[in-house]
Amino acid sequence: MSTFKPNDLTPSDKALVPFVSVDHMMQLIHRIGIETMLRGLAEYIEHDFARWELFDKTPRVASHSEVGVIELMPTSDGEMYGFKYVNGHPKNTSEGLQTVTAFGLLADVDTGYPVLLSEMTLLTALRTAATSAMVAKHLAPKGADTMAMIGNGAQSEFQTLAMKAICGLKSVRLFDSDPAATIKCARNLKSQDIDVVTCASPEEAIEGAQILTTCTADKQNATILSDNMVGSGVHINAIGGDCPGKTELATGILQRSDIFVEYPPQTRIEGEIQQLDADHPVTELWQVITGAVPGRTSQQQITLFDSVGFAIEDFSALRYVRDQLEKTGLYHALDLLADPDNPRDLFGMLQRAAPAAAPSAA
Amino acid sequence: MSTFKPNDLTPSDKALVPFVSVDHMMQLIHRIGIETMLRGLAEYIEHDFARWELFDKTPRVASHSEVGVIELMPTSDGEMYGFKYVNGHPKNTSEGLQTVTAFGLLADVDTGYPVLLSEMTLLTALRTAATSAMVAKHLAPKGADTMAMIGNGAQSEFQTLAMKAICGLKSVRLFDSDPAATIKCARNLKSQDIDVVTCASPEEAIEGAQILTTCTADKQNATILSDNMVGSGVHINAIGGDCPGKTELATGILQRSDIFVEYPPQTRIEGEIQQLDADHPVTELWQVITGAVPGRTSQQQITLFDSVGFAIEDFSALRYVRDQLEKTGLYHALDLLADPDNPRDLFGMLQRAAPAAAPSAA
Repeated sequence: MSTFKPNDLTPSDKALVPFVSVDHMMQLIHRIGIETMLRGLAEYIEHDFARWELFDKTPRVASHSEVGVIELMPTSDGEMYGFKYVNGHPKNTSEGLQTVTAFGLLADVDTGYPVLLSEMTLLTALRTAATSAMVAKHLAPKGADTMAMIGNGAQSEFQTLAMKAICGLKSVRLFDSDPAATIKCARNLKSQDIDVVTCASPEEAIEGAQILTTCTADKQNATILSDNMVGSGVHINAIGGDCPGKTELATGILQRSDIFVEYPPQTRIEGEIQQLDADHPVTELWQVITGAVPGRTSQQQITLFDSVGFAIEDFSALRYVRDQLEKTGLYHALDLLADPDNPRDLFGMLQRAAPAAAPSAA
Repeated sequence: MSTFKPNDLTPSDKALVPFVSVDHMMQLIHRIGIETMLRGLAEYIEHDFARWELFDKTPRVASHSEVGVIELMPTSDGEMYGFKYVNGHPKNTSEGLQTVTAFGLLADVDTGYPVLLSEMTLLTALRTAATSAMVAKHLAPKGADTMAMIGNGAQSEFQTLAMKAICGLKSVRLFDSDPAATIKCARNLKSQDIDVVTCASPEEAIEGAQILTTCTADKQNATILSDNMVGSGVHINAIGGDCPGKTELATGILQRSDIFVEYPPQTRIEGEIQQLDADHPVTELWQVITGAVPGRTSQQQITLFDSVGFAIEDFSALRYVRDQLEKTGLYHALDLLADPDNPRDLFGMLQRAAPAAAPSAA
């Protein structure tokens, strides 16, 4: 029997890969505190955006079927290599399954040996929220403390807490076309020390809000925010437009906004800007973070983060989790890699593992 | 604490992914018997080659560094999706590490949910050998029962046993430039019911052999077999030429041979045929297996399998392993996927996992 030895990460155990299960990830979040963890993730993501040019960047490697997509998202900074496996199957919900599941791996570029395998369904929710808040810190108008949260699904509480932890959000105004989602979100946020207002319409939700977050599950091109709803001086955090054919904002809003994106080749295909000409000007966020180009330049400007999620954010999140392993011990040591004493004697290793009663494997 | 429950693969446990560790893979091989398993793998690989056109095929997704490469090899038959993570770091051996480590995953295309995570260092050794023998069954001359095995490293015993199990090999003639490797290989094969002859030169090794297998670790273009060593009527199983700049055969041999390959776009870059013009004629193996084109057409012909290893072989191997899980129970159930009762309530799942003493995660 192989054994799973938590806390066993001695350097000699090169064949063992630390594995963070869903249960360990939940324990980790509670141990660290969700807001502290969101701040930590935002710092790691910001650090990696600041050294953007170092990274080996590639569009997602996608395998499409009629009902969904399975993607691999690899990247590397030259020292570490990471990838995420993620699926997207909108019809899963009706079958009692998750639309999106994910896991990820971090490896040492120098040896090719994996150093971390982790669940990433929860971790993706955290990194997406941390990215939004890190970006809002750079782009939202000064003193922004109220957010409209349109779409109250799985991402809504994480977005709210990240904006609280990183941007000092004091109030969130919830709207969802399904009132049950709003009730769920309000209930979950009750004990989180933030003012929660439930709203009956998107118009009501955006009243007095300086940050407008859209995160709906509409599959088709939808208009969650219409042009006349959006006044000057706001920051729009558009999460839900994240695959071809799926957008949330009226084109007029995009035309009036300064648009900030993660990785243009991917965002042009998946983001809100798929509605615009392929040469419509956008600003790459990493250049705002390094100070190479300005972010918000006036209080009247509409800034728009057209979020689709990029491999480097997952890489940062995996780096963060890996850095918590030693102090928390919240992982299993997974027997993933064969490690014969003599690399040329894989067969000998196999033979020596034969059950005592059976002398050979013939 | 998450628990690892062997044998727990009830359909309701959708969040749990069966995981086959190195230890479980070794137990599986001994339980089934290595020759039976090689035959089983060859059948699965042959089955998938026979429906080659169904597969979503893509070249490897590689991330190169100065010291090695990390690759993802995905494919799908429309029902299942699979990928392998594999590294190649020749300098690792001098650091007491494996040159190649690998693991793989199989997922359900309809839901995007992973259904198997498995070690693949051992499994890759088995599938490579099973592929060679399956191909030799189609291409080697009638009555071939003697193989020269040039290069006696990690792959040599697996190649020998696959040829025995699938092609009826009776005798293997070993040569390696390092005599210690030959001693190791001969010792490992002693109890495997096959005639083993150790040889002092490659010329001695090929005496009387109808199958010539080359599997050396030379990194540069080398000439393991020179033109005058190879007579008519043999089948060459060239394993070691598998990356740019790494070949084993004299060009003259290639010119006299009928060359059979897995996936031409990959083999042209990585195989022996990188020495030839880009339009040199080759035959795709899947067409031999379906009967669309002939394999060996005369006893005088030299057939050459220019093996580099393709994603579909890993996919077949993962399918085979998955089909053994239920009857053997040789896996752990891995807590890899978050599975909230309400897909929109990921945060609620997290909150309910809070330690009893700490009422919330703020």
